[in-house]
Amino acid sequence: MGYRITFLPDGRTVETAEGETILRAAGRDGIHINATCGGKGTCGRCRVILKEGKAVSADSPHLADKDRAEGVRLACQTTPASDLTVEIPATSQMRKGSKIATGSRLEEMLAAAYGACQGKFRPVTLKFHLQLPPPSLDDNISDFERLKRGLENSGYNAVSVRAGLSTIRKMGSVMREKGWSVTVTLLEEGNTIEVIDIEPGDTSATRYAAAVDIGTTSVVVYLVDLITGKVLDHASAYNTQVRCGEDVITRIVYATEQGGLSELQQLVVSLVNELLGKLCDKHGIGRELLDTAIISGNTTMTHLFFGIDPAYIREEPYIPTAASFPVLGASSVGLHLKDTAVVYAMPGVASYVGGDITSGVLASGLYKQPGLSLFIDIGTNGEIVLGGEDWIVTAACSAGPAFEGGGVKFGMRAMDGAIERVAIDPATLAPSLTVIGGSNPVGICGSGMIDAIGEMFLAGIIDRRGKVNTTLDNPRVRIGENGPEYVLAWAEETGIGADITLTEPDVNNIVRTKGAIYAGFATLLKEVGFTFADVDRIYIAGGFGHYLNIERAVIIGLLPDLPVEKFEFLGNTSIMGAYLALLSKKFREDAEAIAHRMTYIELSVSRNFMDEYVSALFLPHTHIDEFPSVKKLLG
Amino acid sequence: MGYRITFLPDGRTVETAEGETILRAAGRDGIHINATCGGKGTCGRCRVILKEGKAVSADSPHLADKDRAEGVRLACQTTPASDLTVEIPATSQMRKGSKIATGSRLEEMLAAAYGACQGKFRPVTLKFHLQLPPPSLDDNISDFERLKRGLENSGYNAVSVRAGLSTIRKMGSVMREKGWSVTVTLLEEGNTIEVIDIEPGDTSATRYAAAVDIGTTSVVVYLVDLITGKVLDHASAYNTQVRCGEDVITRIVYATEQGGLSELQQLVVSLVNELLGKLCDKHGIGRELLDTAIISGNTTMTHLFFGIDPAYIREEPYIPTAASFPVLGASSVGLHLKDTAVVYAMPGVASYVGGDITSGVLASGLYKQPGLSLFIDIGTNGEIVLGGEDWIVTAACSAGPAFEGGGVKFGMRAMDGAIERVAIDPATLAPSLTVIGGSNPVGICGSGMIDAIGEMFLAGIIDRRGKVNTTLDNPRVRIGENGPEYVLAWAEETGIGADITLTEPDVNNIVRTKGAIYAGFATLLKEVGFTFADVDRIYIAGGFGHYLNIERAVIIGLLPDLPVEKFEFLGNTSIMGAYLALLSKKFREDAEAIAHRMTYIELSVSRNFMDEYVSALFLPHTHIDEFPSVKKLLG
Repeated sequence: MGYRITFLPDGRTVETAEGETILRAAGRDGIHINATCGGKGTCGRCRVILKEGKAVSADSPHLADKDRAEGVRLACQTTPASDLTVEIPATSQMRKGSKIATGSRLEEMLAAAYGACQGKFRPVTLKFHLQLPPPSLDDNISDFERLKRGLENSGYNAVSVRAGLSTIRKMGSVMREKGWSVTVTLLEEGNTIEVIDIEPGDTSATRYAAAVDIGTTSVVVYLVDLITGKVLDHASAYNTQVRCGEDVITRIVYATEQGGLSELQQLVVSLVNELLGKLCDKHGIGRELLDTAIISGNTTMTHLFFGIDPAYIREEPYIPTAASFPVLGASSVGLHLKDTAVVYAMPGVASYVGGDITSGVLASGLYKQPGLSLFIDIGTNGEIVLGGEDWIVTAACSAGPAFEGGGVKFGMRAMDGAIERVAIDPATLAPSLTVIGGSNPVGICGSGMIDAIGEMFLAGIIDRRGKVNTTLDNPRVRIGENGPEYVLAWAEETGIGADITLTEPDVNNIVRTKGAIYAGFATLLKEVGFTFADVDRIYIAGGFGHYLNIERAVIIGLLPDLPVEKFEFLGNTSIMGAYLALLSKKFREDAEAIAHRMTYIELSVSRNFMDEYVSALFLPHTHIDEFPSVKKLLG
Repeated sequence: MGYRITFLPDGRTVETAEGETILRAAGRDGIHINATCGGKGTCGRCRVILKEGKAVSADSPHLADKDRAEGVRLACQTTPASDLTVEIPATSQMRKGSKIATGSRLEEMLAAAYGACQGKFRPVTLKFHLQLPPPSLDDNISDFERLKRGLENSGYNAVSVRAGLSTIRKMGSVMREKGWSVTVTLLEEGNTIEVIDIEPGDTSATRYAAAVDIGTTSVVVYLVDLITGKVLDHASAYNTQVRCGEDVITRIVYATEQGGLSELQQLVVSLVNELLGKLCDKHGIGRELLDTAIISGNTTMTHLFFGIDPAYIREEPYIPTAASFPVLGASSVGLHLKDTAVVYAMPGVASYVGGDITSGVLASGLYKQPGLSLFIDIGTNGEIVLGGEDWIVTAACSAGPAFEGGGVKFGMRAMDGAIERVAIDPATLAPSLTVIGGSNPVGICGSGMIDAIGEMFLAGIIDRRGKVNTTLDNPRVRIGENGPEYVLAWAEETGIGADITLTEPDVNNIVRTKGAIYAGFATLLKEVGFTFADVDRIYIAGGFGHYLNIERAVIIGLLPDLPVEKFEFLGNTSIMGAYLALLSKKFREDAEAIAHRMTYIELSVSRNFMDEYVSALFLPHTHIDEFPSVKKLLG
């Protein structure tokens, strides 16, 4: 027997199953409660407040006695013992309507890409009109043979022409419906053609498609007109899989549990369907006009999207089931497009360098450029690509979720209420904050953390080891319950009624994250015999890049100390690459060639990497000479 | 509100739907009542006897007042008006356990075919074992790439390697289950390979398959061991679609009615599943070990098997949706084999020359032989093939169902109780009969009709126009309710308690049938500039062939007047061809080449054909000189 839980502030109610936690029950009904560890009790994010009723909770180091007295519980550690009324505080809710960042740079690149195709679009499937001669007693070949002959006469001289049973079943009536005028949709593979669809009349002038970026944190969908090549509109949302775990590793673990894989698959597919549905409705386009979807995501996201067990990705030697995928049927995945629509996944390289990075390399043009380029995508994972027209190497470093808010007491993703910029007056140690959306802050996001630590370092609040100087006589520098900390905002200035601080453990987490990324750059360069001085340009991809203050990132040693003009922000290159591949066979071939050319280097077993990592755990670095501009600043 | 009908002698009960006929209600529950017109009220075969209850019946010319008084009704014209008890008399039941003919010739040809493959079998899909190297940090390609590399190393260098989502989903665990030892099943098409299945360990030594002949009248299934190439066993049954119509035309009409196509498809697939299930159970072979089915049938049967609308087959210019089919998934058709099993359909030529005839040409070897061969398959349809190693022409003539029992008062198929041989004493006009199964006769089958008419002609009971000589003073020659007739058996000698006769209308029907077939031969020869004298051999295929008395068939003018040694009975060449194609890629290629090479000539619009047909409506023929041996006999 289950109980009924009423969730405030929305007032939605849920029936629980026997022994089910509040988190599970909420999740089952699509009520979001933040839970970055996937419900293990380790992240402490899923705080809820018991308002009415009785519940059984496990102890948690994340809850102070005061919290408990106020009814605060971890939703993942609490099981109802009666009907309950539970409040989900703002800090545990997903912000609705918060915008995914898009920059003007993105629009420029889209325009450039549109030019690159020169209007000669070549989507994954071909769609064109055929006017077939009607049969007669003297020309009495079967309908299917007539179609094949029509294809041959149009120049499609395949050795083998396939069609599925559903296509064959409708062929006879479709061909006769509009006087032997038909539109075919074809998939070419080698010298084999598959007739994916056949429609009466000439429908070749109406084709739409979806380009989808499936990020660990957010999902972006472009609705594309395949005839004009234009992006009609786009939509985005946070990846609802977050409630099963914030990073790929926790989601892989979740997927291996009973029903977990299927749940994760349904979550992301439903989300894509929902976003696409909104876009289609808004533009009055029937879903049955969408015949293609291209997805671009890291290897784990791609596995989860297709419902493929990702378990082996996290077990040494870290092998994905597939990095490149054949063209598959959209309906077999559950996408609500045309029945016969296909899905193409951007090809990836390895377990930790996926199709999103191939997209990035494609969109950046790195693979066609002379000289040495460094491409970095700092999201929940940090992926690095180094190379140019002749060779490309790539690596991934488990950056950890710090920049996305994980492992940082007041950490959060870059959305409304997040502190995104910080400046600290070196004399008074008073910060000036920029908050996304302009409201009172509720937490701090990655770019804010980088600013804050850079500024704290320059102001002497923390030393090169990241230790807080507790001898400073300033109320903002104090010993809190998690050790020494710096107060970014006093309770009355915030949206949560509590001081927002950056603690010494927070700083350590961030330093480890930046250390891992910098060590990745350094190791990759060393593996191929280059140094930072040889790097001609650095592309920074990912939503994160838009807020990043390069000088501050150099000060903390996240980015190498190179002239600012060598850095270029690209925005969301994952969706860009998907969009390019959607329109152009050449770009798809390029993407496949890129994925094939990229040599993956496994950093986790590299001796160099461990040395580099340890050296990078200082601010900005053990070897201060690698950061001459910072050395100069520090005087 | 429906009623309950209890059917005797079995006692099975059925609930009727509102307004449903007895025939429909019985059919829905798998209770067979003969109905060769598909329930139109025209054939008069679905006689049942009302034992209890009230029912509403339309009038029918097929029922005498005496019948009505005895409670006899046509099941297709009768709707219950209360709960009913209804007897299905023996004449309306399908004979259970009656054997489909197989001849010793068949066994010889199977042995020859086995030799032709020389033990190097090459089924539709390839299945072989791969021992893959396990991945390591230095060899960390994806599972799918590892598989592709393994295929390349085994010599399968495809441009494109596909796999469906279900195969990809299980790939990771299957490869790891038995230490990277896997068995793959591949389908090659052009330079594309599709990985149909992947299994752990080495399962390549166990493969079974089904060869299926789908005849309009009967279905034959062979269970084949794909490793040894041997036929383990076979099973056969009458095609349960018969209750929807006896010939292809009535079934096409039935298919165009609401739900008809789906019903016909389910009937034949269920029957194949049932036969196959029995064979598998008998030999202790799990269905999941069957990975291939080959079907061989005429074009309409093949359309119905795949659930493809056959409507256009019967509309001028008689176009099938497909004559050749791509390899399709068995599960998409509803066959209960391995989930990943494939179905290959023998390629056909045209609407009225299907895969069964290609099978026949393949099995006869005609396509490889010098000289001129004539191949005929006289079933419900008459298909004719003429040619040899250089060219092949083919035609179909709507022979009509007379030889299968249709349109002949006491006509029936060749099964227990059928008169299969007839000799008539020219002095007494007394017949001596041979009955299948040795019991008292219940009707007469095709070979019996040919014998009877030949003997009646020689004995002077009928003249060259098929008119009964009513001036003969013999009790066996009389005027019955259908006009002049000859009594083959007196009521007390039969199993039905009524005189079994051959009426003048019966004779006319049979003469029209034999005339159409002979005219087909003659027209086809004339179209290519040959005469019967040029024909080196005549192959007679089909179950019918086993009972056929060639001399009598020549006397009535069904077969041309050629030396007996030029005729060869081949038996069921449809299943033979399917069996050959099952084991050998060469034979499949031959079959495709045969289907491609055969030139189809549409007799129904040939001026020659109409002339020939009119000339052939005499016994043996208008031009008696074409039948010198008969001319001599008639002396």
